[in-house]
Formats: sequence, structure tokens, C-alpha cells
Amino acid sequence: MSKKKLNVAMIGYAFMGRAHSNAWRQVSHFMDSPLEPVLKVVCGRTLASVKEASEILGWQEYATDWREVVNRKDIDVIDISTPGDSHAEIAIAAAKAGKVVLCEKPLANTVSEARLMVEAVEAAGVINMVCHNYRRAPAVMLAKQLIESGQIGTIFHYRGTYLQDWLVNPKVPRLWRMDKKQAGSGALGDIVSHTLDLSRFLVGEITEVSGMMKTFITERPLPGKTEMAPVTVDDAALSLLRFANGAIGSLEGSRFATGRKNQNRFEINGSKGSLKFDMERMNELEVYIEEGPNSGFRTVMVTDQSHPFVGRWWPPGHIIGYEHTFTHTFADLCKGIAEGKNPQPDFEEGLRNQIALQAIEDSSESKAWVTISR
Amino acid sequence: MSKKKLNVAMIGYAFMGRAHSNAWRQVSHFMDSPLEPVLKVVCGRTLASVKEASEILGWQEYATDWREVVNRKDIDVIDISTPGDSHAEIAIAAAKAGKVVLCEKPLANTVSEARLMVEAVEAAGVINMVCHNYRRAPAVMLAKQLIESGQIGTIFHYRGTYLQDWLVNPKVPRLWRMDKKQAGSGALGDIVSHTLDLSRFLVGEITEVSGMMKTFITERPLPGKTEMAPVTVDDAALSLLRFANGAIGSLEGSRFATGRKNQNRFEINGSKGSLKFDMERMNELEVYIEEGPNSGFRTVMVTDQSHPFVGRWWPPGHIIGYEHTFTHTFADLCKGIAEGKNPQPDFEEGLRNQIALQAIEDSSESKAWVTISR
Amino acid sequence: MSKKKLNVAMIGYAFMGRAHSNAWRQVSHFMDSPLEPVLKVVCGRTLASVKEASEILGWQEYATDWREVVNRKDIDVIDISTPGDSHAEIAIAAAKAGKVVLCEKPLANTVSEARLMVEAVEAAGVINMVCHNYRRAPAVMLAKQLIESGQIGTIFHYRGTYLQDWLVNPKVPRLWRMDKKQAGSGALGDIVSHTLDLSRFLVGEITEVSGMMKTFITERPLPGKTEMAPVTVDDAALSLLRFANGAIGSLEGSRFATGRKNQNRFEINGSKGSLKFDMERMNELEVYIEEGPNSGFRTVMVTDQSHPFVGRWWPPGHIIGYEHTFTHTFADLCKGIAEGKNPQPDFEEGLRNQIALQAIEDSSESKAWVTISR
Amino acid sequence: MSKKKLNVAMIGYAFMGRAHSNAWRQVSHFMDSPLEPVLKVVCGRTLASVKEASEILGWQEYATDWREVVNRKDIDVIDISTPGDSHAEIAIAAAKAGKVVLCEKPLANTVSEARLMVEAVEAAGVINMVCHNYRRAPAVMLAKQLIESGQIGTIFHYRGTYLQDWLVNPKVPRLWRMDKKQAGSGALGDIVSHTLDLSRFLVGEITEVSGMMKTFITERPLPGKTEMAPVTVDDAALSLLRFANGAIGSLEGSRFATGRKNQNRFEINGSKGSLKFDMERMNELEVYIEEGPNSGFRTVMVTDQSHPFVGRWWPPGHIIGYEHTFTHTFADLCKGIAEGKNPQPDFEEGLRNQIALQAIEDSSESKAWVTISR
Repeated sequence: MSKKKLNVAMIGYAFMGRAHSNAWRQVSHFMDSPLEPVLKVVCGRTLASVKEASEILGWQEYATDWREVVNRKDIDVIDISTPGDSHAEIAIAAAKAGKVVLCEKPLANTVSEARLMVEAVEAAGVINMVCHNYRRAPAVMLAKQLIESGQIGTIFHYRGTYLQDWLVNPKVPRLWRMDKKQAGSGALGDIVSHTLDLSRFLVGEITEVSGMMKTFITERPLPGKTEMAPVTVDDAALSLLRFANGAIGSLEGSRFATGRKNQNRFEINGSKGSLKFDMERMNELEVYIEEGPNSGFRTVMVTDQSHPFVGRWWPPGHIIGYEHTFTHTFADLCKGIAEGKNPQPDFEEGLRNQIALQAIEDSSESKAWVTISR
Repeated sequence: MSKKKLNVAMIGYAFMGRAHSNAWRQVSHFMDSPLEPVLKVVCGRTLASVKEASEILGWQEYATDWREVVNRKDIDVIDISTPGDSHAEIAIAAAKAGKVVLCEKPLANTVSEARLMVEAVEAAGVINMVCHNYRRAPAVMLAKQLIESGQIGTIFHYRGTYLQDWLVNPKVPRLWRMDKKQAGSGALGDIVSHTLDLSRFLVGEITEVSGMMKTFITERPLPGKTEMAPVTVDDAALSLLRFANGAIGSLEGSRFATGRKNQNRFEINGSKGSLKFDMERMNELEVYIEEGPNSGFRTVMVTDQSHPFVGRWWPPGHIIGYEHTFTHTFADLCKGIAEGKNPQPDFEEGLRNQIALQAIEDSSESKAWVTISR
Repeated sequence: MSKKKLNVAMIGYAFMGRAHSNAWRQVSHFMDSPLEPVLKVVCGRTLASVKEASEILGWQEYATDWREVVNRKDIDVIDISTPGDSHAEIAIAAAKAGKVVLCEKPLANTVSEARLMVEAVEAAGVINMVCHNYRRAPAVMLAKQLIESGQIGTIFHYRGTYLQDWLVNPKVPRLWRMDKKQAGSGALGDIVSHTLDLSRFLVGEITEVSGMMKTFITERPLPGKTEMAPVTVDDAALSLLRFANGAIGSLEGSRFATGRKNQNRFEINGSKGSLKFDMERMNELEVYIEEGPNSGFRTVMVTDQSHPFVGRWWPPGHIIGYEHTFTHTFADLCKGIAEGKNPQPDFEEGLRNQIALQAIEDSSESKAWVTISR
Repeated sequence: MSKKKLNVAMIGYAFMGRAHSNAWRQVSHFMDSPLEPVLKVVCGRTLASVKEASEILGWQEYATDWREVVNRKDIDVIDISTPGDSHAEIAIAAAKAGKVVLCEKPLANTVSEARLMVEAVEAAGVINMVCHNYRRAPAVMLAKQLIESGQIGTIFHYRGTYLQDWLVNPKVPRLWRMDKKQAGSGALGDIVSHTLDLSRFLVGEITEVSGMMKTFITERPLPGKTEMAPVTVDDAALSLLRFANGAIGSLEGSRFATGRKNQNRFEINGSKGSLKFDMERMNELEVYIEEGPNSGFRTVMVTDQSHPFVGRWWPPGHIIGYEHTFTHTFADLCKGIAEGKNPQPDFEEGLRNQIALQAIEDSSESKAWVTISR
């Protein structure tokens, strides 16, 4: 009766680490997973903090040297929850050590790093996944099903916006997320990456982009200091899109959209219907099916037992939250490991996202459309 | 650093048992609790099922005789998650055994049972709580804060509706929830009890009711059979209310509201403002503060770190779900135990709810207003 | 090509008079009416005011003696837009003079007056109509069509609320609308009457009611004075309902719902679907049709050329407003006149509404359910 | 007491002519206008049709030769409601004849025509206005007031979408609106022009654009025929924007957004707050003012007597519709005429809009950003 164990090591334990830890803990209780994750060891640079994190987040052990952890014989999965500038190094080492590698998005800070990561996991033949958790909101999965079944018809438009407002206040300090070296980019890599991933997941490959990036506040105090430091990333990034299948679209990510906390939205218009999603109301999918004058956008509560991932949560109308998307993602990773097959999105997908993000950045500088090629 | 343990035994492991188990597991990871719950033993009548439940829900042991469990020396808390007809017996035994008693709502199937339960916990001097989880949705707690701080002014109206539709289909079998013996009542005890509890929590004591109950489908097939059995409870229950403080109100619960899955809503109108809540969008509170022509109902995302219970979940705009209300409830129970003080709502509150529910039932039969007295 | 003229005289020219005048003017431009209304004469007690009103509202003549007007040979229609206490006298005189009678709602201040009015129009054999304009919002007509075509199935629930907040401020003076003698009642006759009429229009006859009425502020300053006068009508009125067809329901009207300006809403739940309407978003009807897990309340924009009354207004998505409901009503009255057939709701319908309102008032006093009979 | 008359001649009587006629009729009844418009003569090419239109729309006379009409001594205002390719010729003739000129948007089909029109009205010294009716939705005016009073702070983002779906069906014939010669462009001039005008009205001058245009269905049957004709205009047009004041933005117009009938929306984010508007719910403005964790987007019902243009319509909560925006526009034109001052937007504004639209078209072709200069 008892399942095969899956020993996990997690590198990093901040916001993402907390979400990942919860997901690893919840998989066995709510998902039909072939493997039972064991929260073996959490790893971070500062001893006292990582020790405390291990207790709160429920890890059996803690460690401070990720290289040692990556090479432990008893570890099956390396879960990378650190800032983007360390993804490549850890992932490549983990692949070489023959581990399953799960990496937070964006896959890397640069396209060249991302390419190396793809090469490493392919050379090693290890299961790999990039954590784009929003794909596995049940409503997003339902959107995917409706599109694939042809109910929306040929897609004309994708309209994605991811709006936050935590940088409107000029007193917010210059954290690592506003430093190009550590973060790679600002809104672009942090949030546009999500709506971009959703656009590729739901509509298809992007062939051309015209981007615009903007930094509204160009310097901020360093954390806890009065000394100012330059903001070297974008506060907002937008792009027009052309898809390979003839659809067109737009993306926007901003940390300056006052009043919007984490509004990750998209609308898709096709020849037979339309879909609308808002992560702040993630249990709902607005669905329009053209059937004459009494048609209308209907609010589907995506909480039925038959909806994707919902079966073992709660009865209809009892909603789930943000962190559940990670539980669903990790459950699919467990299934992939058991079946020896990469779950999606894998590193190759992460690389393609990275290439499109880079094209938006290039276009923003050249002030002209940029063609995308793998 | 490590916290004092709190050993929990849970009787019953169906829908509510699943929600309770999750909450017991999550308290230590997300709440600032003085005690660390240990999921010691789960108890149910059928050996094979309770064994399986213990594995999925994360309990260390399983048992089939609740009397034995209630008397185990190593158990601190008895969590009663069974149908209403067994609440009194178990709770009274648990109180006598000196245990903390947590009981699912409604407290009992009858007022006289509820009175005996209150007497038992008071005689034993044990901490006791009835689980009205919706009180601890962050948005409901924020509503309470806004009312108590006077920002809504004198309350005029409470308008509560709890709408579901799972009985519209006449083929749905006659489960225990439609049998008066086991369930006590139908929509009344199951869902009107929630909106009634919220009305008393937010507005105050009710003095008079005029109720109406209705059974739309009076017989249904027994589960897995073609044989029909009578439905002996209400499919829908409504009531007009008069509150001690001069406010008036209405309650409605229905399992025949086609399209409504779990829509637990209220609206409160006061002299300075109004509040509106819908459990299906539980991370939002609609707040109206009168300040001239540009006033309006504002949608407050109750996901700020400063909002009740939110601090250790996720950043603003990252929503939580249904089960989190139980985690918050159990965290407050842990605090109550540590401080030796009943958290609210305790059994006395549960009894008062029961008295009001009974008055609605009486009024529905007598076709006249019924005055409520403790 | 030019149509037969219909000479109209309107008694009263306040808020309702303004809405009526506009409707009479617009009928020929936007409706497919067999008759062309002519705004012949407007009548009021104060010479200067009625003269000014005639200019602004577009009437050819003005007059101060309604009895003279009622007996003018060149007048076809008497439109009564005065407060409720004068409806009966004017309507009866108009009927005796052989005029078509259009009367603002509620038909009268008392049931006995309403009975006399019905007798008068029937004795005289004149076309008669009570102006319940909300029936002819296109979305309400669509609701009626969906119900009649069986798409909603057997109706279980009607839930009507009509919420305003203009009396929350205690400084609002004691106008005629708060004086029982002139107004008959408060929220009951003014706004509950609307949602009651819609319930009877959409669901059917009411057999029993349990009412509750409340006056929150019992005296107010007379207009322009510091002298206080008693408020002799209800600020809010609620009722539970039983319908002849087995459905149950509730009604509420309040002038103390802070933040609600003119929120006339209903929700109807049937065995196959549900409908939801809000007059503040009157161009939309929320429609739920049960068709499995991907069902949902859809927002139908009731602005298609094929929707009731919409054909000669604007293209889809171009919304209409409050006053258009009167234009639609008067167009149907013109059609009725041309065909020699009472349009609905006629005085008989107005009487039945009055009887139900009276029953709510009686029940509120007796604190028991009251049975309704014609 | 009686006002000075203003004699109006209208050229064209289709959809726009119907809206204009209504507005001219309604000004005196609902607006505080210094002049009373007289619907003198309507002009169109087909005798029978224009005769019928004159009766339905309420014009005293009809005519078939616009040159004659433009030169009539008794006419004060020429109202141009024809397709875009005749605007310049008529407007220039009207200016030369010394008439007030009101012209439907877009001002012209080309920038050079628009320049000639501006020169003509300036040379003649006549009052001129381009009819961008959406500026005078009360909610849009309130948005303008809130921005000008500084309550939204420095503007960061404008996000405008104008979505329709009437061309999704490939059987819709190739009307004049899909022929570049008559219409100038497709979605660009027809609907992007509106959201562009609103962006300039509310945010300020645009300095740079990056546009994208797309024709999804490239040929359609001619009206009433099976013969196909090419679609020579865009089905959808998008643009990124940079404003002179540092704000950034995006515009989108599409006739291929299935389920969207006339959804003209914008969202504006500033340093202190945000605004959101949707023409399909034109009586509401969503307003966010940053004031801590309990802030939220509030739905302001813009129906208070103190709100722009609302005073003489209906009480709070009684909504108005699409055509009212024309009534407000024409009332302001009357005021401008009385005061001898161009109301906004005048032809100069129309020209600037035209220049920006042209830049979007140029950018779409060159696939690079285009700088805008007057």
C-alpha cells in the first residue's frame, strides 16, 4: 500500500522556497501521485536561517553547501528556488550528478545560460522541469482543454497582462530583484515571463515581437540605508506579438499598476468563442461560446470534481488558492519521474521562453520588430 | 526552539475530516501557534476505510472505537467531525475525560442536546469550540474589525444567503443529510446555520424570527437502490430576523439554487457604510464608506500582510482557499488552549445558534413570529 | 404615410412626469407604433410651474384644473403622474369621460380605492394600464421569454431586492413620500411594489406572505423648516412569499441600504437554470443553463436587434437607459389602443399587486402569515 | 423665456444620423443650453429614403443636394454624419459658407484632408467640433476631473481596448467600412480612433508609436451578391505608445474579439490611484485611491446630480445610455456657439488624432517605431 519515496533537496528557502515546501508536503495528501515526496534537506547560505526554515517548512535536514547536497547519493530531486543568477550553475551540476532537476522560472538570466542548461539535462538524460506554476491552475488547464477540443475555434487574439504595484512607492528599497546582475531583468523576467509562457502554452509559438521597456524610478535606497543605488531593470515591459499560426497578441507586465496586486490575466478570442482568466479569481474561467443573441461570457466555477486536479480537493464551489498550483505541478513531476518522461514545461520550453524574452528586450532597444528563432 | 506538542484525536474522516486533517497539518507551517499539533489518531467505524484515511490524511494511528480514543491518556484534543446525531454523546464523554473538545457545526441536532453539551464542558472546565470556519476567512475578520471600529456606523440590515444546487437533480440519492434522524434538519442546520452564525458574529443577538421551510422533492432513491425513501428535512429554509440592537435581516439557505455551488454571501448596511462578502470570492471584501458622490463599493483584496491571518501565507494578491479557514480556526484554538481561554465560538455560542435555528423551525410550523430566549 | 395622432394629457409633472413626457416624445422616433402621440396638455396646480414644465417637457399647452382637462373632447389619453392619493379620483373621472387611462404605480393607496378604479374602467369599457415600467426593460422581457419557453424549468425561488439609501441621512426632510396620507406607505408602495410586480409577472400569483416593516428614523424636519414631523411610513419592508405554483420567495425594499442607489435586483432559480437581473446594469441578463461542469452564469448583453424592443435603438453593445423602459411601455399602450385591447399590466393587475402589498402590511402588524385572495 | 433658436442641417442619416438627430431633439429637454436647436433639414442622396428619415428622425425638411443646403441662409450649423471620404469636401464648403461645422469622427480619411479642413475653419473663423462622443460620458468626464485635480497623481500607464466581434463571421458582406477608399481604414479609424482620442484627452500628447495591423479575412462577398471583393482595411489594429509626459500605453481595436459587442475600455494607473472604464457599463467608473491595505477599486455610480451632465437626467442609480453622450456633446457645442468659442475636441484635435492614427499605420508597415509631430 505504501508508495515509493522520492527524496527531495531544495536549494533556496525564501518566498518560492515556502511555496515549494508546501507543495512537496501536500502532494501525497491531495494528489493521486505514484511517488511520495520526502522533504529531505533544505539548503541555504546562512546557517541560522536555513535551520529555522527547515523547522517551519518541514524539512528533515538543513545544509549550507549546495554542491554537497547536489552530490548526495540519497537525493533524487534537486529543486532550485534561488534567484536567477545561480540557476545555471546548480542545474548543470545537478544534471551531471544524475538528479531530476526542477528549476524555478525564468530558467536563467540569459539565453546562453539557458542553452547550457538544456544541453546539460539532455546530455545527462535526466528528467527536468521549469516551474511555471500558473499553467496548472485548474482554470488554465480547462482553457487548454477547451482550445484543444476546438471549442474556441481558430485563435485570433491573445491579450495578457500581469499587473502589480509594489514599486510605485519610491521608498521601496533597491532589492536584488531590481539589480540586473542578479535578476536578469525586472518585470520582464519576473512577470511578463509568466504571461508569455501562458501565451505559448495556449496559443503556440511566437515568431515576432515589438517590445517596449520602461523604468519609472531610476534609483532607490539600498535596503536599510539612505545610500541610493541605480535600478538597472525595467519597471514595466510590453510587447506586441505575432504567432506562427496567424494569431496576434500583446503582453504587459508592470510593477507600477497602482491597485493591482497580482493580477495575472489573459483573454483569448477565437472564431467560435473566447476565454478570460484572472489569477486573482483563479477558480473561475470566463467562457464565451458563440451561439446566437443569448450568448454571453459565462463564469465557470472550475471546482467540479471532473475539472483538472480538482478531484481530491473540495466539493464544487469551495475554492483553492495560489499555492495549489505548485502542488499540481509537483504532482505531475512525480508522475513524469515514475514514467520516465519529462513533464511540461521542460528546460527546452524554458529556453524558448527565454529566447522570446530576450527578443522583447532587443526589440525595445532597437525600436524595431525582432524575429524569433530557436 | 521546538514547540510544545498538542496530541489530537479526530472522530470521523469524511469531507470535514479531510478539511480538519489538513488544518491540523498546516497550523505549524503557516500560523504563529504556541503549540504544535500532532495528528495522533483518527477514528471511524470501518477498519479498512479508517486505515486508508489515516494514510492519506496523515494520522499516525487509526482506531474504530471512539470511546477508547476519548479516554486515551496521551490525547489532548478530541475533534468531532461526525454527523450531528453523535456530537452530543462524544462531546460529553470527551469533556468528562478532561479533553479539549472541538466540535463541527451545528453543535447538535437539538437544543436539548446542545444544552447538555454546554453543561458538560462547563462542569468539566475544559476548553471547547464549535467549528464555524467561515468566521475566520480573513475578509470576514476584516468585516468584524470594520464594524467594531465604527466605520460602518449603526447597522440597519443583514442579508445572508447560502446557495447550493446539489439536490436539484431528483436522481441524487437520499443520503444521511436528507434524513432528519441523522442530520437534524436539511439546509437549515447545514448551511443556514453558517449564515446565521455570521449574522450573530457581525451584527449581534437575534430576538425574533419568522421562518419558512420547504421540501421540493419529497422522496428520493436510497443510495445504490431503486427503492425510494422519504426526504424528511428541508431543501430550503428562509427567515426574517429582528436583532436586539434594532437591525433587521433575512437569511436563506437552499440546495435548489441552480448554478450556485457554494455561494455563502452576506451584505450589511450601516449608517456610515456597507459590507458585502461572497465565500466563492473569499479573498475579497466589498466595502462602501459614505464620503459623497464619488463613493462606491470597493473591492478590497484581503491579502495584505496586515490583514487577519494573512501574514504568513503569500504576498498581496496571491489568494488562499476554503481550507485555510480551518487552519486559522485551529490556530486560534491552539492559542486558546495555551492561554486556558475558550476561543470563540465556544459551545455556548453553538447553543445560541441552535436555539435560533430551532426558532426558525418552530416559526415555520406555527406560521407566526417566534421570540428567542436563551 | 403619416400616422393617426393620439392626443395625450398628463396630470402631474414632477420626476414621473419628466420620464413620461420623454417617453411620449420618443415613441414615434424609436418604436414601431401604430399611433403618433401628441403632447397636448400638461396639468398641475401651480400656474407658473406648470407653464415652465410645459416648455421644458415639450407640451403644447398647460392647465391647472385636471377636471376640465379630463373632459376635453380633443384628449384621447389621461396620463396620471401624481402622488398616490389622487390616483383614484382622477382615474375614475377619466374613465367616466371615456378616456384611455394610464396610471403611475402603485395603482392606489388602498385596496378599496384600487377596486373602485377597476370597476370604473370596466364599466366604462376604456383601455387602462398601470405603469410598471421595469417589466419592459429588454432584459426583463428576455427573462420572461426564457421562462415561458421552459428553458429555466420549474421555478423554485424568487429573490427580489430593491435597495436605495436616500433616507440614511437624518437631515433629509419629511417629504410627502414619508407621509402615510399622501404616499400610502413608504418603501413598500414605492419600491417593494416594483419587485412584487416583477415576481408576479415572472413567477405567478402569490398565495401567502409573511411581512416585516421597519421605520429606522421616526421623525424628520419638515422641508425648509426646523420643525419636526413624524415619519408615518416604513423605511424598509421585507416579505417571505409562497406562490401558487409551489415556488417560494422573498422581497425586500429599503431606503436605508447605504451605497445602493437604485438597485432593483432579482434572482430566479428553476430546475433547469437560473436568471439574475440588476436594474443598475439593466442591459445585461445573467443566465445560467444547466449543462454540466462547464456551465456558468453568462452575462447576456440584451442589446441585440432581435431582443425585445431593441430593434430600433442602437447596434449591439450600445446600451440604453432607465427612461427607455417608459418608451417601451407607452409604445405597447399605443398598440393596445390601436387594437382595442388592454396592454399588461392593466388595472386588474394593479389591484392584485395592491392586495398583495396590503397583505404584507397586515402580516407585519399581526406577526403571522396572511393568505391572499382577490 | 423662450430661447434663441439654432437651425441645424444634417448631412447623412444612417446610424450616426439617427444618434445625432436624437441628440439635437433632446438638448432642450435635458440640458441647460443657451440655444434651442431646430431640426431644420436632413440631407441625403436618395429622395425616398431621406424623406422617410426626415419623418422618423423628426426633421422639418429633407433635401438631396448638400451643396444647396450648405449655402442656405437660414442654416446655422452643418452636421456632417456621412462616411469619412466626404467629410473634407462638405466641411470646407460649410466653413466657406460661414457655418458652424460639426463633423463625425474620424475627422477625415487622410492627414492631408484633415489639414485642409483645419485651415478652412480657421480661415473662415467658424466654430468647429469633431464628434468624439465618448469624451462626454459622465464617467469619462469624472475621470478627467479626478486626473486634473491630481487625485490619481503622475500617470504611468494607459491601457485602451475597443473590442467588437461583428466581422468574425466570414459571411458578413464587404460593406463600405471594409473598403479603404471610403473608410480610410478599418478598426483603426473606426474604433482605435476613439480609444486614441480618450488617451490624448486623459493622458496627453503621444510622441511615438509602434503599430501592428492585421486583416484576418481578406475577401468577402459584396452585399447581396456571391461575388467576392477584397477587404482593403485592417480587422484589428494595436499600438504601443509613448506619451510626452513620460507615461506609456497601449491601444487595441478589433472587430474579431468574439463575444465583445462594443467594449470600449480603458485603465489608467497613476502614482496615487487608478481609473477603469467600460463603455458597456458607462454609468460606472472604477476608482482606486491608494490609502493603505483597505484600498480597493470602487465602483462609482456616476449618476449623482453633481456629476458632469447628470443634473437634469434622473435620480442617482437611474442609468443613462449610449445616445446621451451625443446630447451632452451637442449641448456643449451650443454653449460654444453662444460664447463664440470652440468646444473641445475641435478640428485641430481631430487633426492631431489623425496624425497619430497615420503614424500607427506607417509603423505597422515599416515595422519600427514612428515619431509623431504636428
